[in-house]
Amino acid sequence: MRWAVLLAGGSGTRFWPLSTPQTPKQLLPLSGAGSTAEEAVERLTGLIPRERVLVVAGEAVAPRLRALLKLPADNFLIEPRAASTAPALIWATWEARRRDADAEVLSLHADWAVGDAAAFRRTADTALVTARAHDRLVTVGVVPSRPETGYGYIVPGAPLDGAARTVARFSEKPDAATALDLMAAGALWNSGLFAWTARRLLEEVSRHTPEVAGALPRLEAGDVPGFFRSVTAISIDVGLLERSDAVAVVSGAFAWDDVGTWQALARVRPKDPSGNVLVGAGVLQESHDCIVWSERDPVVLCGVKDLVVVQANGRILVMPTERAADMKQLLDALPAEVRDIGT
Amino acid sequence: MRWAVLLAGGSGTRFWPLSTPQTPKQLLPLSGAGSTAEEAVERLTGLIPRERVLVVAGEAVAPRLRALLKLPADNFLIEPRAASTAPALIWATWEARRRDADAEVLSLHADWAVGDAAAFRRTADTALVTARAHDRLVTVGVVPSRPETGYGYIVPGAPLDGAARTVARFSEKPDAATALDLMAAGALWNSGLFAWTARRLLEEVSRHTPEVAGALPRLEAGDVPGFFRSVTAISIDVGLLERSDAVAVVSGAFAWDDVGTWQALARVRPKDPSGNVLVGAGVLQESHDCIVWSERDPVVLCGVKDLVVVQANGRILVMPTERAADMKQLLDALPAEVRDIGT
Repeated sequence: MRWAVLLAGGSGTRFWPLSTPQTPKQLLPLSGAGSTAEEAVERLTGLIPRERVLVVAGEAVAPRLRALLKLPADNFLIEPRAASTAPALIWATWEARRRDADAEVLSLHADWAVGDAAAFRRTADTALVTARAHDRLVTVGVVPSRPETGYGYIVPGAPLDGAARTVARFSEKPDAATALDLMAAGALWNSGLFAWTARRLLEEVSRHTPEVAGALPRLEAGDVPGFFRSVTAISIDVGLLERSDAVAVVSGAFAWDDVGTWQALARVRPKDPSGNVLVGAGVLQESHDCIVWSERDPVVLCGVKDLVVVQANGRILVMPTERAADMKQLLDALPAEVRDIGT
Repeated sequence: MRWAVLLAGGSGTRFWPLSTPQTPKQLLPLSGAGSTAEEAVERLTGLIPRERVLVVAGEAVAPRLRALLKLPADNFLIEPRAASTAPALIWATWEARRRDADAEVLSLHADWAVGDAAAFRRTADTALVTARAHDRLVTVGVVPSRPETGYGYIVPGAPLDGAARTVARFSEKPDAATALDLMAAGALWNSGLFAWTARRLLEEVSRHTPEVAGALPRLEAGDVPGFFRSVTAISIDVGLLERSDAVAVVSGAFAWDDVGTWQALARVRPKDPSGNVLVGAGVLQESHDCIVWSERDPVVLCGVKDLVVVQANGRILVMPTERAADMKQLLDALPAEVRDIGT
């Protein structure tokens, strides 16, 4: 049967001061009325039933996730520590197979904004069908809409059938010129939407991913903490997909965004005629291309442009939109009593 | 005896959202630890005793003024309506003479920042001495430190003695080129610091200011509301000083600012090495020449310049410092529920 594995970790710094370790971005209504995590589960409707959606997350976010996502209690897989995506996906895939020997797994992230849920489901369905038909690990490559330097790219290789191709190579976070070249050459964004049969995934892990494979007996013994103590933190891309020759790619033609910075709201939220995004109360006079998010106080802008202005959790942030990607450095330089929220 | 008349009206729009009709700028600690109104009374210490400081203000600000300024209760003269400076000063001067037939009056405003209180007192003393010695209405002209277009200028005329000169003419709010010419020609800022004997002021009013003189019998009859109903709103400059030939000017060499906009805080407040003014909690990273005032939430700026950022009274304002002078137009365009505070 089909299972979904929703990766819902994340440290909660990108959308400071709105996001916190207890409420990282996937729990926030960044792209619309609900959180991106809720939207991710909702988006699977008709493709994978809720009782077969597994969620992997850390202890800090678990209470809010359990409250938001109406899923069976034992579908929440709580990581004892964050160890990147390979241990999380391998554990969850192993768990799906424990419950269902013939499990097929669709892996996705809880922090995406997707423009066309039906197209997303059609592509995910194709990926799952391809995974079984060709016995491969299938990546979904999203047709790029801009030469984004913050994403990874997949360069497709030879056709496998009408929908799927092999993967020639991966290119992670290219510089701007390389990103333009990749786009021109037909490369696709590596979305993190993957499909595989549990059996095939675990075979490939045994072959290519010693950082995790050596810890699999701990899972067999029911010792999840021991598994996480034994693994090396590594991403599924670096630890497996870039090493395996059993990878395929199907392309997806839907708007997809990982909503990585405040600036991303300008892509996933409605804008006023001056290009501003306003969430909360505010009046934007003679101002353009600003991102304004206020939890409480009305925000009045007058005569400014290209600014992020946020009030949340008792902090006010003002920065140029082009600096939104530097959030980590900004936070590192803040005194703890300003930076740390709710501690 | 010497009396002071402190004009403490003002509608409370210049420092929105910090200032309100109930707490206009003269009641706010804009230039330092105390309000400018408190500082104005304190600055008179040794020159005019508190029991002879009269305060003219409207009903809206009266409760806060009474609480802040420790003055005799009947020294607060509450205007039934705002009618510019001529009716206020003429009423207060009339009141000083009622209490003291030989009253000398020093008129000043409650919203000034003054850099050197001792120099201020010496100049005020000179103005009062000049007013009696030459039987004139004496203006204090402040030596300009910049070609400010928001102030009025006094062009001095012939010397009356070592300290005082006649007034050749007034020039109100010149354009930038004219302001430069005025500065070069030795013109002085018209500070609003005036000195006169009550007798002489009322004589000149009878001669030159029909807009108010006709209402003086109402004051004689003890009918202050009737006086204010009968007068025409007009400034003391336009209604009297520009008309009279019994005016003199003494120059004052102290830093003086009417703290007219948020931008003025950069002149009257200490700045960090990057030229920022921060009042309240905040962290200003890679930011320069900003004015930040926060009543509650820490403000984090990163990579911005020349911005005013204010949180006060449940509103957040972000505008370029150069737009601070346009506050009235900004407020006119705001919806009432955002603009009106505490109503």
